[in-house]
Amino acid sequence: MPAYRLVEIAEHIRAVLRGDPDHLIHSAGGLEDVTDQGLTYAEDERKLRQALQSPAAAIIVHPNHAPPNGNLKAFLLHPNPRLAFAQALSLFNPMPKPALGVHPTAVIGAGVSLGDEVSIQPYAVIGDGAKIGHRVNIYPYVYVGDGAVVGDDCTLYPHAVVMPFVALGDRVALHPGAVVGGDGYAYVQHEGIHHKIPQIGTVVVEEDVEIGSNATIDRAMTAETRIGKGTKIDNLAQIAHNVKVGSHCLIVSQVGIAGSSVLEDYVVLAGQVGVKDHVRIGQGAVVGAQGGVTKNLAPNTVYWGTPAISHRELLHILSHFHRLPQLAERIQALEKKLGM
Amino acid sequence: MPAYRLVEIAEHIRAVLRGDPDHLIHSAGGLEDVTDQGLTYAEDERKLRQALQSPAAAIIVHPNHAPPNGNLKAFLLHPNPRLAFAQALSLFNPMPKPALGVHPTAVIGAGVSLGDEVSIQPYAVIGDGAKIGHRVNIYPYVYVGDGAVVGDDCTLYPHAVVMPFVALGDRVALHPGAVVGGDGYAYVQHEGIHHKIPQIGTVVVEEDVEIGSNATIDRAMTAETRIGKGTKIDNLAQIAHNVKVGSHCLIVSQVGIAGSSVLEDYVVLAGQVGVKDHVRIGQGAVVGAQGGVTKNLAPNTVYWGTPAISHRELLHILSHFHRLPQLAERIQALEKKLGM
Amino acid sequence: MPAYRLVEIAEHIRAVLRGDPDHLIHSAGGLEDVTDQGLTYAEDERKLRQALQSPAAAIIVHPNHAPPNGNLKAFLLHPNPRLAFAQALSLFNPMPKPALGVHPTAVIGAGVSLGDEVSIQPYAVIGDGAKIGHRVNIYPYVYVGDGAVVGDDCTLYPHAVVMPFVALGDRVALHPGAVVGGDGYAYVQHEGIHHKIPQIGTVVVEEDVEIGSNATIDRAMTAETRIGKGTKIDNLAQIAHNVKVGSHCLIVSQVGIAGSSVLEDYVVLAGQVGVKDHVRIGQGAVVGAQGGVTKNLAPNTVYWGTPAISHRELLHILSHFHRLPQLAERIQALEKKLGM
Repeated sequence: MPAYRLVEIAEHIRAVLRGDPDHLIHSAGGLEDVTDQGLTYAEDERKLRQALQSPAAAIIVHPNHAPPNGNLKAFLLHPNPRLAFAQALSLFNPMPKPALGVHPTAVIGAGVSLGDEVSIQPYAVIGDGAKIGHRVNIYPYVYVGDGAVVGDDCTLYPHAVVMPFVALGDRVALHPGAVVGGDGYAYVQHEGIHHKIPQIGTVVVEEDVEIGSNATIDRAMTAETRIGKGTKIDNLAQIAHNVKVGSHCLIVSQVGIAGSSVLEDYVVLAGQVGVKDHVRIGQGAVVGAQGGVTKNLAPNTVYWGTPAISHRELLHILSHFHRLPQLAERIQALEKKLGM
Repeated sequence: MPAYRLVEIAEHIRAVLRGDPDHLIHSAGGLEDVTDQGLTYAEDERKLRQALQSPAAAIIVHPNHAPPNGNLKAFLLHPNPRLAFAQALSLFNPMPKPALGVHPTAVIGAGVSLGDEVSIQPYAVIGDGAKIGHRVNIYPYVYVGDGAVVGDDCTLYPHAVVMPFVALGDRVALHPGAVVGGDGYAYVQHEGIHHKIPQIGTVVVEEDVEIGSNATIDRAMTAETRIGKGTKIDNLAQIAHNVKVGSHCLIVSQVGIAGSSVLEDYVVLAGQVGVKDHVRIGQGAVVGAQGGVTKNLAPNTVYWGTPAISHRELLHILSHFHRLPQLAERIQALEKKLGM
Repeated sequence: MPAYRLVEIAEHIRAVLRGDPDHLIHSAGGLEDVTDQGLTYAEDERKLRQALQSPAAAIIVHPNHAPPNGNLKAFLLHPNPRLAFAQALSLFNPMPKPALGVHPTAVIGAGVSLGDEVSIQPYAVIGDGAKIGHRVNIYPYVYVGDGAVVGDDCTLYPHAVVMPFVALGDRVALHPGAVVGGDGYAYVQHEGIHHKIPQIGTVVVEEDVEIGSNATIDRAMTAETRIGKGTKIDNLAQIAHNVKVGSHCLIVSQVGIAGSSVLEDYVVLAGQVGVKDHVRIGQGAVVGAQGGVTKNLAPNTVYWGTPAISHRELLHILSHFHRLPQLAERIQALEKKLGM
């Protein structure tokens, strides 16, 4: 593992250093696991108190929260400690850099266009006419179908699947087992049989999107399913055909979004949320974990429950729900008093 | 992309054409994405009004809904417009036809039987004694275990897994990453340890079944897990060991069905539904999204909620649930009035 | 299929045999599928009555439940019939033994350490510096990243993914498509952009753990995500970064556990349960299917619902919930009586 002088870290994360610039930092850790040779961060004063109790050698902290001089620990002053910590983590990232070039076992189709400095690892399969951007990193067993487009600086982890004609923007990451462009789920019943509706559309994934392990994004029936730029999708999420996800949304693990629904920008769906087909979720709306969205949601509002309603309102209702037996007793007492 | 004369499309979908037979149609699309060179469909009069406003060049419509002559658009009259549209989509499907034959990198075990006109793509692995039907299309990284049977006209998309001795009927599709025949989840606790119960049964998937991306169907403890003919299973669904799913069921994304439960024919489970072990769901029953089935369900009834009850009844209850704070206030007012 | 004399089975499972020691048993089955040449088991007296009605040739039963002599069936007396049946099933397990050795198509990195009697099947990829224990069975398309450790007697089924530096203890099974060590879902928002926080930690899976098909276990942001020994994780479950799962837990299909939460030992989470981040679930706590855990849970207590509360209490509340329309009518009647 590499070690860095505090001044090097301060420069890397653009922080003001208060401490010995030559002090060596060997690792970075959270409040629970940082060591006495390590760097941590504190987002607020409560976290700072914990950090000061921790063995950490250095703490990234907001200038307003920095303790007075004389502390034995070093401080890196930064207006966004968590962002700075993320940048510091990249210094200590042990992930191996993949070998550049095309492994001899990779199967590259006819008319494939490969960018510069790509890494195509063992047993990757790239279909005819696919276009792979610069500095793309393709792990083993990645399947890129015919005519698919993979933008610059993408990372496709083992077993990721990009079905034919799907387009990924720049800096997209597909985590292991993610499937982009499988068929949408669409049938028409006729004389007791479910007849498949061919899914002839595609998926467009805009730049800076991440798609989690074993998540699935279905191709459109016609036209496209679209994931907006900067949106982050967690493991095992399901995005159905013709869904439009806006930019900078957060879609947490095991969320399911049914066909043709629309998420405007900056929507947050917590874990295991389900969204009905053909609904629209307004910009900045948040749905709490396991919520079930059954109709359009207003922007910049927090929802919870199934059917999802205002989070504040649901908490109020739940406080009564949890006292239902007492409410029933009170009704009974009233009835008794009135001889009913 | 191919283009078709209207008369060709009418013949293909067996519709009555009202319009210029030689007019060229370049694409097919839904109401939101159809172009002025494209074909769309309208299932009812409301959709027809939308279709008439769309740029579509031609519309598939029920004969009873067809507008009077003189319209600038062409009409294809068909008693089931959605079914006819599905058939038309197949004309415009851009999906590449896989190369026939066995790719030299495919590993074919001893005693494997291969049907005619199969496509076994790079890096497929077919285990000893497996039987692959005619016109089967096996994509890269598909694993077919020893002794497994794959019927005629099946499509196994990339990374699909068919574990040993599993049997797939004709025209089955496994979408990317689908796993059929992994071990059921079965342990017996003894002296604080969970001992595994070997899962020595199998899975039988009948004809015309589709299994979605990254869905999982477990093998039985003994005997078989069975998926009935014509049933369609969406992405990321989980079917546990010894479950019996009837024919023509619809199992939507992220549904989970626990061990040994039985779905009769034509059951519909909407997204994220959970089904307890050892229950029976009657023919034609429908469970709304996120419902939790805790006991046997009657046929031809719509259920919702956890625990799942009659959908109609739950809606009635929920209307009161959402007014619980007001109910509590009314009780308080009564108590006050009575000096309680 | 092999057949065994009853005396052989009795010895294998250490049961007392009451019946003809030379009688041949050809299969083992549950109460619904056992044949007249087969062995079954009965856990209690009700099951025994069913078993006696079944065609089974032999029944494993607790000595206290064994029927009087003179019955036509044979009996294997064992204090834990289900455990003994599990042991008997292993005799009839048809799963093929994998060929020992390293298949020529496997890609083995530099400095890999391979134990004795390993089976490395076609198209496996083992990264640089990885360490594979004795008697490990690695199926096709398994990816073991650089520096990862796989303990003795592990089984990695097709498409299992072990990302770099992840450590698996002895006797761990990864079912098809399971992903261990994908990135945790962690971003920090800055000027409207979600910046990725590098996930530089790892995953430690202790001995005797099973991880189901297409389940996902994320690597830690820093330090480690840990799955305690003997814990069994079902298909499509999601364990987020920095989660600590204790020993001997049962995590059923489609459960999701958010970041940094802690499960003490012997916790049971039924299917589709969701657990919030940073909560602690006490030893032996049980959460019913689809429950949503929003805060710390006490040990040895059964919970249900979202938010999860005492199962007993929730059932009581639900009994009133399901009569809410009647409660509302009673309030109305009271109001009428009082002229309100």
